[in-house]
Amino acid sequence: MIQMTLIQIDNYGPWTVTPSPKAESDLQILQAELYADLEQQFAARGGLVFFTRFDNMLAISNNISIEDHKHIQKSIGNRYPITISMGIGAGNTPYDAQYNATKALQKYGSAQSPKRKEILAVDSIAENGFVQIAHIDINGITKKLTDTVSAYDTFLFVNKVYQILMDELFKKGALIFFIGGDNFMSLCNGVKTNALLKILKIVDEELNIELKAGVGKASTAYKAANLADLALEAIREGNTSSLVHMIEEKEMIN
Amino acid sequence: MIQMTLIQIDNYGPWTVTPSPKAESDLQILQAELYADLEQQFAARGGLVFFTRFDNMLAISNNISIEDHKHIQKSIGNRYPITISMGIGAGNTPYDAQYNATKALQKYGSAQSPKRKEILAVDSIAENGFVQIAHIDINGITKKLTDTVSAYDTFLFVNKVYQILMDELFKKGALIFFIGGDNFMSLCNGVKTNALLKILKIVDEELNIELKAGVGKASTAYKAANLADLALEAIREGNTSSLVHMIEEKEMIN
Amino acid sequence: MIQMTLIQIDNYGPWTVTPSPKAESDLQILQAELYADLEQQFAARGGLVFFTRFDNMLAISNNISIEDHKHIQKSIGNRYPITISMGIGAGNTPYDAQYNATKALQKYGSAQSPKRKEILAVDSIAENGFVQIAHIDINGITKKLTDTVSAYDTFLFVNKVYQILMDELFKKGALIFFIGGDNFMSLCNGVKTNALLKILKIVDEELNIELKAGVGKASTAYKAANLADLALEAIREGNTSSLVHMIEEKEMIN
Amino acid sequence: MIQMTLIQIDNYGPWTVTPSPKAESDLQILQAELYADLEQQFAARGGLVFFTRFDNMLAISNNISIEDHKHIQKSIGNRYPITISMGIGAGNTPYDAQYNATKALQKYGSAQSPKRKEILAVDSIAENGFVQIAHIDINGITKKLTDTVSAYDTFLFVNKVYQILMDELFKKGALIFFIGGDNFMSLCNGVKTNALLKILKIVDEELNIELKAGVGKASTAYKAANLADLALEAIREGNTSSLVHMIEEKEMIN
Repeated sequence: MIQMTLIQIDNYGPWTVTPSPKAESDLQILQAELYADLEQQFAARGGLVFFTRFDNMLAISNNISIEDHKHIQKSIGNRYPITISMGIGAGNTPYDAQYNATKALQKYGSAQSPKRKEILAVDSIAENGFVQIAHIDINGITKKLTDTVSAYDTFLFVNKVYQILMDELFKKGALIFFIGGDNFMSLCNGVKTNALLKILKIVDEELNIELKAGVGKASTAYKAANLADLALEAIREGNTSSLVHMIEEKEMIN
Repeated sequence: MIQMTLIQIDNYGPWTVTPSPKAESDLQILQAELYADLEQQFAARGGLVFFTRFDNMLAISNNISIEDHKHIQKSIGNRYPITISMGIGAGNTPYDAQYNATKALQKYGSAQSPKRKEILAVDSIAENGFVQIAHIDINGITKKLTDTVSAYDTFLFVNKVYQILMDELFKKGALIFFIGGDNFMSLCNGVKTNALLKILKIVDEELNIELKAGVGKASTAYKAANLADLALEAIREGNTSSLVHMIEEKEMIN
Repeated sequence: MIQMTLIQIDNYGPWTVTPSPKAESDLQILQAELYADLEQQFAARGGLVFFTRFDNMLAISNNISIEDHKHIQKSIGNRYPITISMGIGAGNTPYDAQYNATKALQKYGSAQSPKRKEILAVDSIAENGFVQIAHIDINGITKKLTDTVSAYDTFLFVNKVYQILMDELFKKGALIFFIGGDNFMSLCNGVKTNALLKILKIVDEELNIELKAGVGKASTAYKAANLADLALEAIREGNTSSLVHMIEEKEMIN
Repeated sequence: MIQMTLIQIDNYGPWTVTPSPKAESDLQILQAELYADLEQQFAARGGLVFFTRFDNMLAISNNISIEDHKHIQKSIGNRYPITISMGIGAGNTPYDAQYNATKALQKYGSAQSPKRKEILAVDSIAENGFVQIAHIDINGITKKLTDTVSAYDTFLFVNKVYQILMDELFKKGALIFFIGGDNFMSLCNGVKTNALLKILKIVDEELNIELKAGVGKASTAYKAANLADLALEAIREGNTSSLVHMIEEKEMIN
């Protein structure tokens, strides 16, 4: 079981244009700092947050208690002009976990209701669960794209890769998030390395570009991400011949 | 003429894995804070930055001098574990401007060269130019999606909208960036409101969702974005019947 | 026993002027952000950091493990242009704890040695210790000073209060830090409320100003500070007649 | 004429304890980030902010227009749970400038009035003024104190130096702020280098410690601070025999 938390800014849309539209630069700074802040607070407790749509973020929260969520929620409320509501859900697939988290929160009213504020809605908690993360990147993007074509062309290309990965992983109940550069993190509990390899090949066939994936499996997102990074390094350094390599935390509890 | 700046973290990829892979949460915090910081510094001078790929960001920099760029570059170098290089370019279309900015920087060596550091490469400066920005959002997304389907499903949908907008605007030499929630900003100097309306209709036909676009035209990105926001508000409040509405800064110099 | 951590920026002085003096604004931003960051990370684990001299900060770290310290240290090293070393010490008085923490770190070489880097020096850990914090503020400062005299005159006055408190508390092995406005936090394990009251009276006699102190006693700094705040509120609201009031965490382990 | 801005958080004290006392760590993070943010925004326009009491900060604002102040004020209001009011004043001495700035703001009501919000009170603007800054530090503090005595003992000593400098400079209409480590910045328009030297000697006589001062004189705080740093480096490197050295911006106006 993976545990996920949906973090939603309360009544954000209306706030951004009241009494008149706030400067876009201020909103961008606010959103980026809120994300960095939540990342810091979840990571200090073994979690990992993805910026997603910024006003709606998704976090892996295995091992993070309801008490900890309350602490984080209050800390944000104390330091920002906005507040956040959260939904917590567990599931066998990351898709199910975020689905349960969303449904729990939706019961409390609309994301744009002025009445719904600082809700912590719990559908389920993953006891003794695990997290599987695939860190995927593009082979040789710097030479092939960054140093050769325009910055926006590279950006477009990375987004095309993203779109295919989104579509294919979705079929497996797996999620994927862009994390900067040519890097993606897929939350893929239950997806076999073989299945991942097939997905990478689909991208290669469609866009003629080779991807690789380091996969980590551990009790927390923090550890799983680190193992995924080490697995990716192993591929990069040629210590494994496959384009997908997995490292598991020892003595894992399922 | 629009002026754009490509901001590139020097030799970032290798740094993230030296001597061993850095914690993903630390990289996410670093990237988000660097973006917020640059947004602050460019906005203080009338500009606007888009996070793009985070290690490669694109900014509108009309009216921001080479001296100011140097100041920003030095300030980042003083406060971060990484340094940035920048390329500046002007063009009739945003695509051309970023193309020129990229090409200027690429001449100084690879983005992953340990030797290329804190370069400020100038292709061209836009004197008396202007910036046209379209702020595009999705009509009624909260009711239709956020409050109804799962957070990831909404995210997938927003990305599908993004992909079509990217493809269609590209044909006009216009760029587009996701700015959070259901919001996009398109840099679209030279694109008529009629052409924008057609693009919104293509999205509607493909995905069965109505979009609207407020357009601002001004001497700086900061002002153009504000005008675009006001134009979007005018549509939202029913003060204009079209789904695309433009407001221009008075007495504009072309 | 209270446990304290000395956080020291490695070789900071020389760094600030190499290759030439860095802009003072950049240093101020860096220092303030580093402090905010460490505060966030220690607070997430029940601690509390005081900015002290900014290049040398003191934290209460009861219940924060060596492993956690390593995590924080690495996270700073990943995101700042500087690194930090730390010393950890326990003691019956806060003075002794920070003394032991300092001595442990000093053994590894000079704060300005280019060789000493990212040291974690442990003198001692407080098992089952406790933290006593007094939150002291000035009665009616807004009316008496902020709204009446110049901002700098108020600042000078607050510093005179600070100086007397420093001198008097020092005799008891207690530390005190300015925390903004007219607020001070004294780490005062072992100091009786009567003794605190006498010290407040000394300030009153010398400067003709009334102070009050809410005292909290708990297993972590985070909790002790909250109790101190509640105790201060109790005085403010007239729920206690004394100028010093203490609240202890229930079922405390000494 | 030097121009100073008093930045005051609106109704901050009551906010920190409503509905119940906010976690001290959150307040510390908020205050430090607000200070870093204002420093960034003032520095981008040639100014310099001192944290002072955090809820009341003083900035040198020569060359920063009322329009710029409004922009900064709005940007803070958009991104923090609190708002700020500001007073702007010019004077022949820094003391007079901050006095005028304070008085202008005080006219609008109490710092703790819930009604007074986002005021920008202008007493006077310094046209063609100048800024004189002395950057003062302690000779050999690392060897003598940081590496030898406890962290808190060094802190106490630095505060004793601060107290004497405050008292002596006050007599000249000059202000002084601790800026971290063993560093102080004195705003000292109109104070001769001879007079500064005498003050450093008073500290030496009372505390048996040698100080030095680099002085910069320029049209903006940003430049004056940089010149002060260069002047301090000149003393440090033995390029001048005196303990006080001044560098002026060329072709200075008044």
